[in-house]
Amino acid sequence: MNFINKLSAAWTANDSLLCVGLDPDMAKLPAQFQSAPDGIYQFCREIIDATADLACSFKPQIAYFAALGAEQQLEQICAYARANYPHIPLILDAKRGDIGATARQYAREAFDRYGADAVTVNPYMGSDSVEPYMEWSERGVIILCRTSNPGGSDLQFLNVDGKPLYQHVARLVAEKWNSNGQCALVVGATFPEELAQVRAIVGDMPLLVPGIGAQGGDIAATVRSGRTASGHGMMINSSRAILYAPQQAGEDFAAAARRVALETRDAINQYRAG
Amino acid sequence: MNFINKLSAAWTANDSLLCVGLDPDMAKLPAQFQSAPDGIYQFCREIIDATADLACSFKPQIAYFAALGAEQQLEQICAYARANYPHIPLILDAKRGDIGATARQYAREAFDRYGADAVTVNPYMGSDSVEPYMEWSERGVIILCRTSNPGGSDLQFLNVDGKPLYQHVARLVAEKWNSNGQCALVVGATFPEELAQVRAIVGDMPLLVPGIGAQGGDIAATVRSGRTASGHGMMINSSRAILYAPQQAGEDFAAAARRVALETRDAINQYRAG
Repeated sequence: MNFINKLSAAWTANDSLLCVGLDPDMAKLPAQFQSAPDGIYQFCREIIDATADLACSFKPQIAYFAALGAEQQLEQICAYARANYPHIPLILDAKRGDIGATARQYAREAFDRYGADAVTVNPYMGSDSVEPYMEWSERGVIILCRTSNPGGSDLQFLNVDGKPLYQHVARLVAEKWNSNGQCALVVGATFPEELAQVRAIVGDMPLLVPGIGAQGGDIAATVRSGRTASGHGMMINSSRAILYAPQQAGEDFAAAARRVALETRDAINQYRAG
Repeated sequence: MNFINKLSAAWTANDSLLCVGLDPDMAKLPAQFQSAPDGIYQFCREIIDATADLACSFKPQIAYFAALGAEQQLEQICAYARANYPHIPLILDAKRGDIGATARQYAREAFDRYGADAVTVNPYMGSDSVEPYMEWSERGVIILCRTSNPGGSDLQFLNVDGKPLYQHVARLVAEKWNSNGQCALVVGATFPEELAQVRAIVGDMPLLVPGIGAQGGDIAATVRSGRTASGHGMMINSSRAILYAPQQAGEDFAAAARRVALETRDAINQYRAG
């Protein structure tokens, strides 16, 4: 099953638009994981088990592994997720961007080595920096469009023929790069009006939406702006707010993560219809 | 010594603007390296030894290592270059781009794990995706501006208030992001006129210039367009043309690589003055 169909099935099966981001910052992990040689894997495995029936996707952020030389643990995490929750799309958040021959190496990294269903990529280098990923015809390519960080406007909001650059990227992807139906876009939750404008441009194309939770985006406005007519179409990511959820009496970290994931999923679902 | 000063010293010491790119494609390596468990490291070490007196920088491309799960060999290569040729700047070509907290992890990867003197980054996510690298005040940040691939124009040539986007990126870096003097730009060799325009915008800022050799850029036009008044200012990259140089009678791969590197350095030097 290809990425887009797998994502659609997960939206329905788990009644969820929540993407659980796996950004394992060693300093924030419970003490037992900081001292274990495969502590990052153990931690992420428990988060995956605790949230797999609540999520439409898992999204490991490779930078957290690369900084520590922990690629092998990322391989283990991906293998665990694929083996135990094969119906939940696995997104490698890598934001790669390079010319053709090099992009093909990054595609091999994401799809062959880690077995990801989709990978995030950067559009700045243009079509031939994105095409090599499409050779893996069952996989997805999630292209940066409008990002949720303060500096996102430096380039993305530049005025190109009367429209901000990010809208040109949305149009380019929708009208040209998505000819095989493998594309999705990253659009941050911090600008709901812009999310609505991207939705208007791209039809039902899935949107990966970071910026709720720790980054402060408003859930109601985000969902209302980004949903499709069928009430789906989004992977709304939360990472830190779930991974490092404050524990209530009687909870361990995994139970706290599950509680926050459930609350977030349900908060999102309040605004999917109507 | 910081990156920019180290680069200046290497330009002079080796009388060279040549950057030797390390893109070790397993299928193209001599047979003895394909079968060795650390063959990539062995191959790159020989290339480094064969060209270290001819280069102003070495530039490993991380995608080739990531595709194979060979990060440990990349660590070895970087350690070898730093230990044996500490005066030659080591550039990690990674083209990273992400929000602040994640960018900091990528900076740790490039600067702490691999010990690179500089790293290539993507500007699409804006200032706060670049700033974290600046915390390593002795290191360099080489920002994509105008790339040499066919699709480079898709975004970089969009018309922003009468100027192509890449010129806005050049201006943004020169006027704002480079406040600590740590920045350089990537500008492809396939568009010499655009290289000249970037040079006019950024003063003496170093430019990393891919696109000669296998990519077909013209050396004379490239050097004349990109040099500074002092005849420096560029790291002109060649990867495949050196790494996989056709061997002449009596040459092994390293001697062939050295010969092509020498020819390329000298071809560049013909056009540095006058």
